[in-house]
Amino acid sequence: MNEALYTVNNLWILIATVLVFIMHLGFATLEAGFVQKKNTVNILFKNCMIIAIGLITYCLIGFNLMYPGGDGGGFIGFAGFGLSLPEGAAGGIEYADGAYHYYSDFIFQAMFAATCATIVSGAVAERIKLMPFLVFTILFVMISYPITGMWKWGAGWLDAMGFYDFAGSTIVHSVGGWGALAGIILLGARKGKYTKKGIKPIPGHSIPLATLGVFLLWFGWFGFNGGSVLSADPSSVGLVFVTTSLAAAAGAIGAFFVSYWMFKSHDLSMVLNGILGGLVGITAGADVVSVTSALVIGLIAGSIIPLSVVFFDRYLKLDDPVGATSVHLVCGIWGTLAVGIFGIGEFSFITQLIGVASIGLFTFIFAFGVFYVLKVTVGIRVTEEEEVKGLDLAEHDMPAYPEFESQSSPYELAIK
Amino acid sequence: MNEALYTVNNLWILIATVLVFIMHLGFATLEAGFVQKKNTVNILFKNCMIIAIGLITYCLIGFNLMYPGGDGGGFIGFAGFGLSLPEGAAGGIEYADGAYHYYSDFIFQAMFAATCATIVSGAVAERIKLMPFLVFTILFVMISYPITGMWKWGAGWLDAMGFYDFAGSTIVHSVGGWGALAGIILLGARKGKYTKKGIKPIPGHSIPLATLGVFLLWFGWFGFNGGSVLSADPSSVGLVFVTTSLAAAAGAIGAFFVSYWMFKSHDLSMVLNGILGGLVGITAGADVVSVTSALVIGLIAGSIIPLSVVFFDRYLKLDDPVGATSVHLVCGIWGTLAVGIFGIGEFSFITQLIGVASIGLFTFIFAFGVFYVLKVTVGIRVTEEEEVKGLDLAEHDMPAYPEFESQSSPYELAIK
Amino acid sequence: MNEALYTVNNLWILIATVLVFIMHLGFATLEAGFVQKKNTVNILFKNCMIIAIGLITYCLIGFNLMYPGGDGGGFIGFAGFGLSLPEGAAGGIEYADGAYHYYSDFIFQAMFAATCATIVSGAVAERIKLMPFLVFTILFVMISYPITGMWKWGAGWLDAMGFYDFAGSTIVHSVGGWGALAGIILLGARKGKYTKKGIKPIPGHSIPLATLGVFLLWFGWFGFNGGSVLSADPSSVGLVFVTTSLAAAAGAIGAFFVSYWMFKSHDLSMVLNGILGGLVGITAGADVVSVTSALVIGLIAGSIIPLSVVFFDRYLKLDDPVGATSVHLVCGIWGTLAVGIFGIGEFSFITQLIGVASIGLFTFIFAFGVFYVLKVTVGIRVTEEEEVKGLDLAEHDMPAYPEFESQSSPYELAIK
Repeated sequence: MNEALYTVNNLWILIATVLVFIMHLGFATLEAGFVQKKNTVNILFKNCMIIAIGLITYCLIGFNLMYPGGDGGGFIGFAGFGLSLPEGAAGGIEYADGAYHYYSDFIFQAMFAATCATIVSGAVAERIKLMPFLVFTILFVMISYPITGMWKWGAGWLDAMGFYDFAGSTIVHSVGGWGALAGIILLGARKGKYTKKGIKPIPGHSIPLATLGVFLLWFGWFGFNGGSVLSADPSSVGLVFVTTSLAAAAGAIGAFFVSYWMFKSHDLSMVLNGILGGLVGITAGADVVSVTSALVIGLIAGSIIPLSVVFFDRYLKLDDPVGATSVHLVCGIWGTLAVGIFGIGEFSFITQLIGVASIGLFTFIFAFGVFYVLKVTVGIRVTEEEEVKGLDLAEHDMPAYPEFESQSSPYELAIK
Repeated sequence: MNEALYTVNNLWILIATVLVFIMHLGFATLEAGFVQKKNTVNILFKNCMIIAIGLITYCLIGFNLMYPGGDGGGFIGFAGFGLSLPEGAAGGIEYADGAYHYYSDFIFQAMFAATCATIVSGAVAERIKLMPFLVFTILFVMISYPITGMWKWGAGWLDAMGFYDFAGSTIVHSVGGWGALAGIILLGARKGKYTKKGIKPIPGHSIPLATLGVFLLWFGWFGFNGGSVLSADPSSVGLVFVTTSLAAAAGAIGAFFVSYWMFKSHDLSMVLNGILGGLVGITAGADVVSVTSALVIGLIAGSIIPLSVVFFDRYLKLDDPVGATSVHLVCGIWGTLAVGIFGIGEFSFITQLIGVASIGLFTFIFAFGVFYVLKVTVGIRVTEEEEVKGLDLAEHDMPAYPEFESQSSPYELAIK
Repeated sequence: MNEALYTVNNLWILIATVLVFIMHLGFATLEAGFVQKKNTVNILFKNCMIIAIGLITYCLIGFNLMYPGGDGGGFIGFAGFGLSLPEGAAGGIEYADGAYHYYSDFIFQAMFAATCATIVSGAVAERIKLMPFLVFTILFVMISYPITGMWKWGAGWLDAMGFYDFAGSTIVHSVGGWGALAGIILLGARKGKYTKKGIKPIPGHSIPLATLGVFLLWFGWFGFNGGSVLSADPSSVGLVFVTTSLAAAAGAIGAFFVSYWMFKSHDLSMVLNGILGGLVGITAGADVVSVTSALVIGLIAGSIIPLSVVFFDRYLKLDDPVGATSVHLVCGIWGTLAVGIFGIGEFSFITQLIGVASIGLFTFIFAFGVFYVLKVTVGIRVTEEEEVKGLDLAEHDMPAYPEFESQSSPYELAIK
């Protein structure tokens, strides 16, 4: 093992960890910007707790559930509780992709784990009770995410089949999306959203905060995808940076045109979600597609966003305040299947579909089950009174902006 | 080629890319903070589209226009459309400065390209029509920036003459500044800015957002200047970090004293722009000046800011809401000339002046021409009614803060 | 000296520098979020000046006061003014911990130096006069911090005794905390805070801004602690990333439970400060404790936060708007002592206590002395009228949000 090369590869994993960490701030601000002022503290609180819960549960159980070792090809496995530094070479591990330290491996993976719960957080915002949500987060991050993650990244049965998901369009993003879908089905829409008079948009309270979130997510995605190369190999990381950036850019362009065509207006929230859609879409194949394919994948992902948002909202009447299902579930599926279309190498569309479906099925059933049990026992939805008052005062006794006029939103005044 | 050294050099280019990327968030929040509330969504929208347009056009055309290869010494050249990975050594290129991958080279340069349009965006804010601005952005980033960039960085005629511009005081910042100047001349001032009763300040709507922007820009500048070393050479990157930081700090000090002397008040917007002025000023010579010279360059740049802002506003009556011309044009010129004064090595003040003037002339004529053609054809300015209403509602049907009181600004109430 | 290894070690110091830099934005936004709207520009202004002052004074004097060289074991020393690149190997220095460049060493340390003044800034917010605060900052950063820092990091007498403080729980954080304590004792509480009717909470004006600050601080802490390894050694930096992250997470959990037990509410400001408490707590021993110990240290630190905040506020009646004394002083002491309890290796609780006490004594006396002299000469507190009006208008003639309703805060209306 060349010490300098080992050190630089390991350093890149650690720096990528830092970048993935800041995605949690990206999610927090994106979601905060897209919810009403009266639910801002609540969404920020959840995002603080999610990263704390995610790191600790992944340390105690998740990591060893996701990477059980052994012969591979399995459905489930467990390597015991907590972290245990391998012997020899000071914990430096020779993985297939290069060499890096056990601790670096753990902390990079741990930052990923909490992401899927964060995705759920945005979709169920403005009406879920805090404590049941935190219980869901613990179970989802500690058990569900690592099990399906193992199927591919832990050398499980999907990996053995040839399923490919480079950095987690399916394993991370669609998993979060399925959890979100289960949540919003069982929760129901926000009060006043779908009425006899029609569907009322409930705008988020701060577009600058949401924009900040999207840029931070893009920023962090360089670590999310770039770090998933699992080494600092110049050719691979360079390609991943190029495909990731161009897909995000193309996502913005796609959403720009399609949303203008649909709404005759330049809708910033669609462009923002278009960028995220492009990023989610390229994540499964960022290292195995050409630059041109990356542009196409991103353009399609971005174009899907306004269509999908309208589809969920108008036709399915599923209320998702931040568009998490469109961004993470729909574009996550698209990106995973796109590997079967554009991937350079031996990729099978059918295998990709099997991966998407099997992980989706497991995750949706798990999340639906947990939310259902919580619903029929402690309840998952705040009271109507609390919802009107806002979760900030109901759950936290604390407004987000104590000195700014606390009038009702224009929307609330309108529906009175 | 030592593999480990190649990997670490390449990794630094990629990490610098990530840092330069976040400068786009810095510009977005700085500009958003410095405009009125009613134009916030518009400025954020433009900044999202600029980065998307910048990356894609640079991939399609700009990169090969800026680095045409060949014998050098020329005025223009083109190496064909799109990216084409060089053969051999997996795309690893031995540049004069070290070795790094073709993809890393592209993506680092691509992040720079969009910057110049972002600079224009702030200056023309609050009154330019969206679509003409985006058309300008495409042409400016795809054609004008790469051509003048090639003159120096692409081994063109200015490079052959001995002109020096380390990371782009002229090639990036003053180019953006000249584009901004052309724009604000043709657009005219915001309604109510210059009246018979005198000049009315139109304060930005969120100083915290603007401050966030400046810190993020400084943060990103470590990649902008540090990455321009084009290797991770400890001595060079270390020096660049020191000179860059101290020039920014000295810029704050310069603006602090001069603005207090001029206004008898501690003007945060001047200190913020003083930091940026110091950063722009050191950019041309960050690797060839002493630590003491860096302090002097930054101190002068910061001191220039309040003088320049007042000069443009009061004497030229050119309306620049964010001070982009003072920061990027004036300090960009200062920084480039400063290499001829403080540069350790063979630098000629006259050659620096020729570089500044020739790039300025080309860029100003190009930008003026594009804006002029747009003005006489589709028009570049929103209607008076739209300007009063704000571009957020006029162009995007979306207020930035839907739940916060949408009263007119104090300034607007005052001029009624 | 292996060139590639030298380059990667040096690169990590530089990247860690960038991360520590952004902590200044973290402090700026945290403090801005936790103060009233009318004092926002003031706190941002101070944070801009602190980083500028910190870098320049550290360059001129501080660095050579902190690292005087020589035989070691001393109380004070000085290696002369300004930076002077060592001869040989282009300034690459073989430190005990590895090799990196002199410039990298300086700029990394310089970013640390300003931190301690930033900590003071939050505690004395909303009532201190700007100019005396800046004078205090100059003296504190230029003289006090480097002298006590030298005692350990500059191979001084505490280092010779075996005192251990990895990245500065005491040397940076408690130093800032002692300065803050001296300041708030001499300044007195904000008007209306402690009345005959009881203690009135004065909520900060923007919880999203404060949350942004905490995430940015955590982000930067990867550089603060990770960079303090002073090389990119995979095993050490990996461990530090794991212990740092888990302590922060455990800090959130500790504060969550204790604050719920105390207040029967989910208090986001406590969880935010709990995260910071966990980070401060792990800083002294991040490289010498086990993963489990890191969890315990963080959990205790987070649990201390609500207790300490209430203790300072209710029992000592010391008014600290942002909780800086609880986070940086109390958890800084806890973290330093924790090395004597949990540290793997030869650490002495008594020696840790001597370090805490001696540095605390020196710093408190220094800070108290400076503030006292300023108080009896130029005065350190704004007038009552200015305090009511807010420092933004009183000192800067500039509101933070000119277009948002500038009504008095709910709290102010209540006490009228």
